[in-house]
Amino acid sequence: MKRAAIAQDWEVFVAHPGAGMAADINEQPAGFARLLEPANAEAIARIAAVIAERRPRHVVFTARGTSDHAALYAAYLTEIRLGLPAGLASPSAVTVFGARPDLSSALVIGVSQSGGSSDLAEVLRQARASGALTLAVTNAPDSPLTGVAELAIDIVAGHERAVAATKTYTAELFTLLMLIEGVRAGNGVLPEEERKALAALPELAERTLADPTARQLATRYRFAARVVTTGRGYAYPTAREAALKLMETSYLPSLAFSGADLLHGPLAMTDPDVPVLAVVGAGPGGAAMRDVLARVGERGADVVAVGPSDVPGATARLAVPQVDERYAPLLDILPLQQLALALALARGEDPDAPRGLHKVTSTL
Amino acid sequence: MKRAAIAQDWEVFVAHPGAGMAADINEQPAGFARLLEPANAEAIARIAAVIAERRPRHVVFTARGTSDHAALYAAYLTEIRLGLPAGLASPSAVTVFGARPDLSSALVIGVSQSGGSSDLAEVLRQARASGALTLAVTNAPDSPLTGVAELAIDIVAGHERAVAATKTYTAELFTLLMLIEGVRAGNGVLPEEERKALAALPELAERTLADPTARQLATRYRFAARVVTTGRGYAYPTAREAALKLMETSYLPSLAFSGADLLHGPLAMTDPDVPVLAVVGAGPGGAAMRDVLARVGERGADVVAVGPSDVPGATARLAVPQVDERYAPLLDILPLQQLALALALARGEDPDAPRGLHKVTSTL
Repeated sequence: MKRAAIAQDWEVFVAHPGAGMAADINEQPAGFARLLEPANAEAIARIAAVIAERRPRHVVFTARGTSDHAALYAAYLTEIRLGLPAGLASPSAVTVFGARPDLSSALVIGVSQSGGSSDLAEVLRQARASGALTLAVTNAPDSPLTGVAELAIDIVAGHERAVAATKTYTAELFTLLMLIEGVRAGNGVLPEEERKALAALPELAERTLADPTARQLATRYRFAARVVTTGRGYAYPTAREAALKLMETSYLPSLAFSGADLLHGPLAMTDPDVPVLAVVGAGPGGAAMRDVLARVGERGADVVAVGPSDVPGATARLAVPQVDERYAPLLDILPLQQLALALALARGEDPDAPRGLHKVTSTL
Repeated sequence: MKRAAIAQDWEVFVAHPGAGMAADINEQPAGFARLLEPANAEAIARIAAVIAERRPRHVVFTARGTSDHAALYAAYLTEIRLGLPAGLASPSAVTVFGARPDLSSALVIGVSQSGGSSDLAEVLRQARASGALTLAVTNAPDSPLTGVAELAIDIVAGHERAVAATKTYTAELFTLLMLIEGVRAGNGVLPEEERKALAALPELAERTLADPTARQLATRYRFAARVVTTGRGYAYPTAREAALKLMETSYLPSLAFSGADLLHGPLAMTDPDVPVLAVVGAGPGGAAMRDVLARVGERGADVVAVGPSDVPGATARLAVPQVDERYAPLLDILPLQQLALALALARGEDPDAPRGLHKVTSTL
């Protein structure tokens, strides 16, 4: 069985460039469903109950790259759903400059696909020594990060074929969502309504991935010199992650801004040559983007809206089923991953093995 | 006297594009010296003493654009020098999604040149209502942000001529540095050694600004399609702010990464056509950049080092006097501001009035 799986992977690799990333992307609905299986859901619920009982006063996330975007999503959830202050810690303050912050009233969560970055492990080790409750969220239950943390959750995403993270990103999002809603519930057990909303996501993700628009748009942006991505609130991590995917796979300079920050300077840079990928949900975050897009429209930019409804002035839309904005990051990123993949192929690059990158990145 | 000053400003504006930004840039050494004058230093010391007495358990910063980079610097200082966890809050969680985090053990600092952004004022209002100690750091003592905060500090930078912030950025950095060192001292009064180090900065800033290299480099990058900026720890806010200046004034897509994050994906994007502006100080942050630059060098990128010493493989250097890395952000940004100004002029843009931007930015 295991040998067959390896053979299949290999076949996929030799078949054509991008096949690994395509397979990873397509596995995401199954990844959501896997996290909802009783054994996995209960493992998350147990950790959530421990956290709820320990009552941290604030939450600090530490992560790098794609996982940093999952942490950013979780920070919004923590503030909005738990009413706890949340922030993203810079590992270098601890690992390079010797900071020893007193984290005795904090929950410190390290998020990492590989669990192998030594700087994150060091941050968690120091946090635990200062009295913090520590949690590792990884796709590698035997990793160094898991070893140093008091608590650990496995995102059970399975082996990721491509260097650019896709299915591990959404598995991190889904895990952190289940965890935080479990903490909110108090005993880790999700309320019926929440469970129903989560249970609908695998099928909604399938439907999102079946739409061919993202692949078609790649032709349009084949010769773009740069891209701007933007979103607000829950949608801002999606904008950041989409920009990173485009840079990793297509080497296309992609600038991500919160809708508000875009108006503080970078707006000057947008013009008719710059596609703007705007994540516009059906809720307060999307509503707050309307003003931003009006200003972007004045500059003549080519706007692609990612979301459940048409946006005035947008030239194209990547359609995503309508869900509460809290769940939208699980779906909004899917067509943007497809766009990154298709654009890399259109530009003759191999998105499975971007130049200069490795799957596990070690930094001080 | 006042009329003469206005007339002079006006003359400068009609004289040639960029004259306003040039004047702002050149006023920075005087801005540092002004903050060290007894009346201003004592005002900061009084606030520092109040904070030290109230003993917050953690610090939350809220800011936008350039001021967000000053806040990021202050967050590093807070963790490293005070041993307190620090984070940057996203205003939208509060203003758009209705988050009401319990900030009763926090110090919440709003940083804003104009003090006029209604979202930051709302974050401070809610923080104060939840029991936080609140502080507004602005260049506008009569602003809405100052009105809602319990404590306020004026960065006394005077009127800023250009839309792109320069002298108010470094005045924010300098003010936050004085504040945090004052909190560290306990009674707000800086230790003799610290006072001496700060007193040396105006002259070091003069000397940095007198170097013509930044203006010469502009010719070299006249036709660059994009730029990457990078730094670690205290130098990371400098990389972010340099990227924002280049985007605001020259409309040059500029991607800022912490040295560590650069290796997590965006490295793939660097090639011989992409200038990399790397801030490399004389300390642990700079040392941690050496590995990063070796990897960037493998990709054939054109590296400009900003700092006190030569970096192997760099093709040019923006020289900055050697100081402790904690003070370096006050100096490192100066040649980068000059580069942004010179590059904008070389590309035929008017950096004093970037297209589409206003001095006070209102967002939800």
